Amino acid sequence: MRSRRLSPRSGGRSVSDARVVVAGASGFAGALAASLVHRHPRLELGAATARADAGVRLDRLYPRYRVPVELTALDPDAAGQFDAAIVAYPHGAAAEVVARFVEAGVPVVDVSADFRLDDRAVYEETYGDHGAPELLDDAVYGLTELHRDDVRGSRLVANPGCYPTAAILALAPLAEAGLASDVVISAASGVSGAGRVAGDRFHFVSVDENFTPYGIEGHRHLPEIVQELEGLEEGAGTVPSPDAEPRRRRVTFVPHLVPLDQGLLTSCFVTPSREVEAEELRRLYAERYDGEAFVEVVDDPPGVREVRDTNLCRIHVAVDERTGRAMAFAAIDNLWKGAAGQAIQNLNLMLGMEETDGLL
Amino acid sequence: MRSRRLSPRSGGRSVSDARVVVAGASGFAGALAASLVHRHPRLELGAATARADAGVRLDRLYPRYRVPVELTALDPDAAGQFDAAIVAYPHGAAAEVVARFVEAGVPVVDVSADFRLDDRAVYEETYGDHGAPELLDDAVYGLTELHRDDVRGSRLVANPGCYPTAAILALAPLAEAGLASDVVISAASGVSGAGRVAGDRFHFVSVDENFTPYGIEGHRHLPEIVQELEGLEEGAGTVPSPDAEPRRRRVTFVPHLVPLDQGLLTSCFVTPSREVEAEELRRLYAERYDGEAFVEVVDDPPGVREVRDTNLCRIHVAVDERTGRAMAFAAIDNLWKGAAGQAIQNLNLMLGMEETDGLL
Amino acid sequence: MRSRRLSPRSGGRSVSDARVVVAGASGFAGALAASLVHRHPRLELGAATARADAGVRLDRLYPRYRVPVELTALDPDAAGQFDAAIVAYPHGAAAEVVARFVEAGVPVVDVSADFRLDDRAVYEETYGDHGAPELLDDAVYGLTELHRDDVRGSRLVANPGCYPTAAILALAPLAEAGLASDVVISAASGVSGAGRVAGDRFHFVSVDENFTPYGIEGHRHLPEIVQELEGLEEGAGTVPSPDAEPRRRRVTFVPHLVPLDQGLLTSCFVTPSREVEAEELRRLYAERYDGEAFVEVVDDPPGVREVRDTNLCRIHVAVDERTGRAMAFAAIDNLWKGAAGQAIQNLNLMLGMEETDGLL
Amino acid sequence: MRSRRLSPRSGGRSVSDARVVVAGASGFAGALAASLVHRHPRLELGAATARADAGVRLDRLYPRYRVPVELTALDPDAAGQFDAAIVAYPHGAAAEVVARFVEAGVPVVDVSADFRLDDRAVYEETYGDHGAPELLDDAVYGLTELHRDDVRGSRLVANPGCYPTAAILALAPLAEAGLASDVVISAASGVSGAGRVAGDRFHFVSVDENFTPYGIEGHRHLPEIVQELEGLEEGAGTVPSPDAEPRRRRVTFVPHLVPLDQGLLTSCFVTPSREVEAEELRRLYAERYDGEAFVEVVDDPPGVREVRDTNLCRIHVAVDERTGRAMAFAAIDNLWKGAAGQAIQNLNLMLGMEETDGLL
Repeated sequence: MRSRRLSPRSGGRSVSDARVVVAGASGFAGALAASLVHRHPRLELGAATARADAGVRLDRLYPRYRVPVELTALDPDAAGQFDAAIVAYPHGAAAEVVARFVEAGVPVVDVSADFRLDDRAVYEETYGDHGAPELLDDAVYGLTELHRDDVRGSRLVANPGCYPTAAILALAPLAEAGLASDVVISAASGVSGAGRVAGDRFHFVSVDENFTPYGIEGHRHLPEIVQELEGLEEGAGTVPSPDAEPRRRRVTFVPHLVPLDQGLLTSCFVTPSREVEAEELRRLYAERYDGEAFVEVVDDPPGVREVRDTNLCRIHVAVDERTGRAMAFAAIDNLWKGAAGQAIQNLNLMLGMEETDGLL
Repeated sequence: MRSRRLSPRSGGRSVSDARVVVAGASGFAGALAASLVHRHPRLELGAATARADAGVRLDRLYPRYRVPVELTALDPDAAGQFDAAIVAYPHGAAAEVVARFVEAGVPVVDVSADFRLDDRAVYEETYGDHGAPELLDDAVYGLTELHRDDVRGSRLVANPGCYPTAAILALAPLAEAGLASDVVISAASGVSGAGRVAGDRFHFVSVDENFTPYGIEGHRHLPEIVQELEGLEEGAGTVPSPDAEPRRRRVTFVPHLVPLDQGLLTSCFVTPSREVEAEELRRLYAERYDGEAFVEVVDDPPGVREVRDTNLCRIHVAVDERTGRAMAFAAIDNLWKGAAGQAIQNLNLMLGMEETDGLL
Repeated sequence: MRSRRLSPRSGGRSVSDARVVVAGASGFAGALAASLVHRHPRLELGAATARADAGVRLDRLYPRYRVPVELTALDPDAAGQFDAAIVAYPHGAAAEVVARFVEAGVPVVDVSADFRLDDRAVYEETYGDHGAPELLDDAVYGLTELHRDDVRGSRLVANPGCYPTAAILALAPLAEAGLASDVVISAASGVSGAGRVAGDRFHFVSVDENFTPYGIEGHRHLPEIVQELEGLEEGAGTVPSPDAEPRRRRVTFVPHLVPLDQGLLTSCFVTPSREVEAEELRRLYAERYDGEAFVEVVDDPPGVREVRDTNLCRIHVAVDERTGRAMAFAAIDNLWKGAAGQAIQNLNLMLGMEETDGLL
Repeated sequence: MRSRRLSPRSGGRSVSDARVVVAGASGFAGALAASLVHRHPRLELGAATARADAGVRLDRLYPRYRVPVELTALDPDAAGQFDAAIVAYPHGAAAEVVARFVEAGVPVVDVSADFRLDDRAVYEETYGDHGAPELLDDAVYGLTELHRDDVRGSRLVANPGCYPTAAILALAPLAEAGLASDVVISAASGVSGAGRVAGDRFHFVSVDENFTPYGIEGHRHLPEIVQELEGLEEGAGTVPSPDAEPRRRRVTFVPHLVPLDQGLLTSCFVTPSREVEAEELRRLYAERYDGEAFVEVVDDPPGVREVRDTNLCRIHVAVDERTGRAMAFAAIDNLWKGAAGQAIQNLNLMLGMEETDGLL
């Protein structure tokens, strides 16, 4: 990003402040990211790249997004010609591409999992070898509402996974208050969350009229959730006593596949470390998210349809009077707040723009 | 039921062993019950009654079931002309109708909630006034796999709710083993579970591409679940110590609405009272349900599509190695094992037939 | 609309050019219209009115549209306080409300059918008594691409029905060329096309996994289609010879209900009055819709998903080589181009704005 | 099939009359065929074979069918060990397998297209080279209601395609009466009709909330439809005058993909060769299908949900009063009457059983 481009806008939409490349624009998240850049009032879509689909126009693959741009092959040597990059490669394949942009001094949001985990060992246990471990320390975990200031100053933002986004937003106020002793997260996602993957499992006939738990032996989004909840407790100085079980021993996470396209819900059940009242919780959440453009604390349990095609996270918190459990429900659109929308939210901050630009 | 009819069958399908009336056959559960009776090798559909829809043919309302029978108004004075009755009235309205059949000496399966709760006070807190409280003591809770012998000898069986059927089957082995200290049930049901109710909430446009938690302030199926889990612990002599929290303080139950027609899943998360290994759990479940025709303990988490249009309950049990939690997932078809199918299963036993007659 | 408001914009979004009331904003089309006005760069949502739902906030009923406005009761005496009105009342109920706005000198787009048909007799045969027949002559049929100039100068625009919008756009080039001798329109619409109507027919369980023809005895959208096709032939001087069958004798229209929310497709089969080649047809369509912002002539048959949440109409035209039939397929979003989107498109023209304002 | 096996049944279900192999039982149609054989009162599932999935249990792939049988590789040399075969291979691959069974004297129903077309040239134009053209003359087109007697005596039945089954049943009475001069068939099928094919096109996200025409350049089911309609006219002596356009010049067929699993509807629009009244048509259809177990002429346009999981074809016929067109709508389950159900129907006849055995 050259500073000359960050001068105040001279006027109408035709002048952009930054040329952005979206690498991996043929997948679900990448295509939406390209579309959001394309419609963004202050960004220009410099290139949308793809591997197998290079040469195809994006509006052929995703007519609804109406981006009349031909997908090209990524030229890593030309990384420096862009002002910013969004990388939406599969996990594992992203790290090297991200590294090229970082080397070229281009700020990058990585939508993959490659830079989300601070601990390389945990990454490699979960995803396999890491392609650019030297960058792990530089990456900021881009759950914007939690790490806004770090994102602002970062050159490499690791965009959170879809489940972690909803789960952590649902649990953050409890974790910060030191209340999230013991957590069950029962989550559900629409099919686009799995990415543009062929195969029997996501064939219409497999998904239609079905509802299935999966990944119960340990979904790869769990380490992200654990890392961030621990971080919140540490940051707030609310870590339980040293002899308490470590956090990773206290979170159960089970996702389910729902027969719909876009939408993700996390239903969180928390045994708090002390008795809490519904009113206290509601206040806690209202204060924590006061002023947030994309987090709404609502009076009723949210349905995912309410937030479809938006960057919103709607959260409802309640207490199960019988058991004393705190319950927090968070709904997002997995492709927006759970992927491409949050990528733009982060990129806005990195480029010194308004956080909400192009997202309302 | 006259004993003359229970003589051994003389031969083919044309001779039935019992004439059954289905009262309330225009609702989802009642219509399927009528259809199952109609196709049953040893039962005859004596009458299918309805209130608003009397005069309409059942195959007009439910073409797929192909029951070429006109719905009639129920004549309570003629209750005695049938050998058995299935009552599928709404909660509250059922009790009086059930009472008429009981008075006439007709064995009855009540698909409503009216006789499911032993404790009248709990019933009235949950559903309102009870129409025939004098019969509460006579009713058997018809979760067949738990109360088979009682069902066999009963004249009044209260067919369980759909959520309780799946939840209790998922949790029974743990409860009997005294392991179900602390339970979170995150459940999901297709739309037919709500019954044939009009209104915005079940309009196609409200449900499509949506997934929503509901009833979080206390779903009316919770008391059934609590009652049966307590009963299992008492029966097995595995009640926790007297100073432990009562069961009703230890179960959280939250249902969700899924955009599909028939299908129900309960995902149960249990903090066991002592450490358990996955292998121990698998053995526990395999033994508990050994020989059951309609409960299958399976190696993978079940999807509801697998059991659609069947009376099966598929259960998968696992341990979350990180937290030590036991997890049990149970899938049923809410209209079959969760309502009409189980009604037939119970009726078969009450009439001295094979439990599986007409259900395979 | 006061002329003082139509002065050039002084600047940013905060200054609107016109205050618009949406009457009937609790229905599907009205709510989207209110949302489009609310986000429109040059319009202000002056009021959103409803009958049964007055007092409810619009974002309670339709969270996804995020219009934080309370629905109010319509005050007909205050009609004159707005610069423009969109009326989205049910057919029959709209005419009187429209009349009040017209009397008050407020330009109005009527989303109902009340002013679509030139011939009062045809209207009353189709819909019943007309509430303001004296206004029929003043109304312009707002299929924008056909009547752009008339819309621009009109004070009362009758917004077309959803099926007619897609059918007429699909057939217009053929009709204008005098080629549409004999027409079969097999159409399909998502459920939102039926409006926010309760009842068994649009219950999720009735629609899910179903596909049904309906209205085959004569759907009320047929007269609109016939009127416009006749008009096109007359306008182009391509009316068939006087002894030909009248147009209304030559159009068959059958809609089907598809299990989806928003989306409408018309598949049109035309026996042309003379032989035509595919290439000729493609040229005819390309030229006819050249420069249109919202009509795209595409190379493949369009799916409705491609145009969801857009004001686009995608049309594909082909020739069945075996039979010589011309085939034209048009996909729209029934709530956008088929209702609220086109209402804004028309309102933009009536208020002297860019036709695409607030729609891209 | 050895005659010794066709002796009268000695009694209960355990004794089968014929051992049937289903070749290609891992696809949608083959798996249902295996399931129908498995539950059939007079058939035994001798083997269920698959290529890629050999070694997998069928109830792993299709839990809902509950066939606890391991898929095996087909041993062509052992073809003679079965009494009958159902071949559900892909088009092109089936012919050779069918030939092996025919050589071994085993009666076979071929669910593929390989023996449906009398004219080898038309076949090869449509599907490519034919693997066993010498058998084309021996094959009977198994639209049971049209060719019942031929099926009964045949050793090789070509089971019709799903679209042709519904289209021809919808049109047969008109064709036999010489009335089907000019025909438009607008059809729609659920996704299972495409078979168990991976790839973007049938990914849940491609199909969900979509409705798309396809195959408009000439779907491969069209030649079947033409062949049979011509045959009906010839059989009934109602061929139009020699100088009329040949049939293949008079049928337009366009299918659409609907977001559902099982179900197929053909909406047929016929310009009759002379004026017909609705009442005449109703009588014509009622008489033509009088006594048919699987064809129901109904008073309202049928939805596909009504016939799901059944072997029924529901037909509604009407006249468009304005244009004089005859309209016939036929709904089937594409996997049942459109594939595996009709295969059993045919096999029943070939083996001298009741046509409805195992299908009600």
